[in-house]
Amino acid sequence: MNYAAKLFSMSDNAEPIIVLVNPQMGENIGATARAMLNCGLSRLRIVNPRDGWPNERANAMSAGALDRIPPVEIFDTLTAAIADCQTIYATTARSRDLVKPVMTARSASIKIHREIKEGQKVAILFGAERSGLTNEEIMLAHKLITIPLNPDFSSLNLGQSVLLVSYEWSQNIFDAPDITLPMGKSLPASTQLFNTFFDRLDQALDLGGFYRVPEMKDIISRNIRSFFSRAHPTDQEINTLHGIITTLLGTHDKKN
Amino acid sequence: MNYAAKLFSMSDNAEPIIVLVNPQMGENIGATARAMLNCGLSRLRIVNPRDGWPNERANAMSAGALDRIPPVEIFDTLTAAIADCQTIYATTARSRDLVKPVMTARSASIKIHREIKEGQKVAILFGAERSGLTNEEIMLAHKLITIPLNPDFSSLNLGQSVLLVSYEWSQNIFDAPDITLPMGKSLPASTQLFNTFFDRLDQALDLGGFYRVPEMKDIISRNIRSFFSRAHPTDQEINTLHGIITTLLGTHDKKN
Repeated sequence: MNYAAKLFSMSDNAEPIIVLVNPQMGENIGATARAMLNCGLSRLRIVNPRDGWPNERANAMSAGALDRIPPVEIFDTLTAAIADCQTIYATTARSRDLVKPVMTARSASIKIHREIKEGQKVAILFGAERSGLTNEEIMLAHKLITIPLNPDFSSLNLGQSVLLVSYEWSQNIFDAPDITLPMGKSLPASTQLFNTFFDRLDQALDLGGFYRVPEMKDIISRNIRSFFSRAHPTDQEINTLHGIITTLLGTHDKKN
Repeated sequence: MNYAAKLFSMSDNAEPIIVLVNPQMGENIGATARAMLNCGLSRLRIVNPRDGWPNERANAMSAGALDRIPPVEIFDTLTAAIADCQTIYATTARSRDLVKPVMTARSASIKIHREIKEGQKVAILFGAERSGLTNEEIMLAHKLITIPLNPDFSSLNLGQSVLLVSYEWSQNIFDAPDITLPMGKSLPASTQLFNTFFDRLDQALDLGGFYRVPEMKDIISRNIRSFFSRAHPTDQEINTLHGIITTLLGTHDKKN
């Protein structure tokens, strides 16, 4: 059985999923698929490709890679694309005013290997060609990946960014000791489970008049989300957080 | 002085020289220059470029890099191009029947840093697009560099090969923090501030009947504390968490 065949037979969890968000040019999607398969990656999801799917230019540029990986999965929204994923990395060139861990591609790749070994489904997000990921998209991630490059000339095209991140993943097949977060049998909650919790909290806050200044609502809500996401709760902890909300909401009833 | 300016002022020996041998497409020369400058390299020599030099397509594809590095040096023969170099690396995808040391790009980059520190002038050779370096060209090198990739899909284009080799070189120069958590001006909250928040939450939960089984109270309370502590909130976030508690506690009042 050759290498590509082996990839097909692997479980969906055995490698990180590459997610392109709003990519514009088919050429870059093709270059992405080629770079991924060069590095042994095969799971590609695309959110809202500008020119639709399938795409002739993507096929031409992939040098056959698109025929050899499982079918690309297309989604309307980023939230849907990562609903089943537990740990989300966002690639970003600029530094952002978000309190999220920033890792090099190299150290991220070591972490991703470990997370996958634990049974997690991991996604790595890449933004659109010119603009990269929006702050709203980055909010959905737990950690940021940045590639250390010449600070005066750091712009990479999309295919090259995917190549470097995929390359680092492929080079780190050895298990490197690092800090681990023992979670018992509990895995981190999926994005969907996390979102259900956060939406509930957000609505309760809205209803309770927490967002006094309407123009600030989005940014404050984003910061709260960032805080909870940073702790990366397990399924069990999401249940506990729901219990906390229920309790706090009900306290006055019981007192009165 | 910006980074590119610093590169210009460096001695010719301070970085490896990239040598493209018989490249065919200007686009690939441009992509090479861009990838080099992304990674802080600036010395490019070309042996016998098919379409002559300068080359419009190369300029377009370099995203400005060709204007920012020292002039590309053109040679008629590989021998002339490496005449002043002491240590020569040849990149190759296929294994060759030559008794020469073969290194990964990663370990080669460490060696090259050491050789340059010793005062050596080092060259890295890349062959033509389809065929790569001939055996005669490889004979002129001291060591071979190979990039470990998916054995069933290992073909990279020229610009991508240069990118990966340059990237490995650059990871030993850019002083990149491995993992950082950008917090703006906010520091993580002090233990005291954190405890004040947590005690308030804990009491509100207790009052609201959250801890239904008294014997479990300590362990559940500890787990919740552990969750919030893991996110390591800033002062600002502690304020926000207080606001959340206040809001949730007060919601029923306002509804009723």
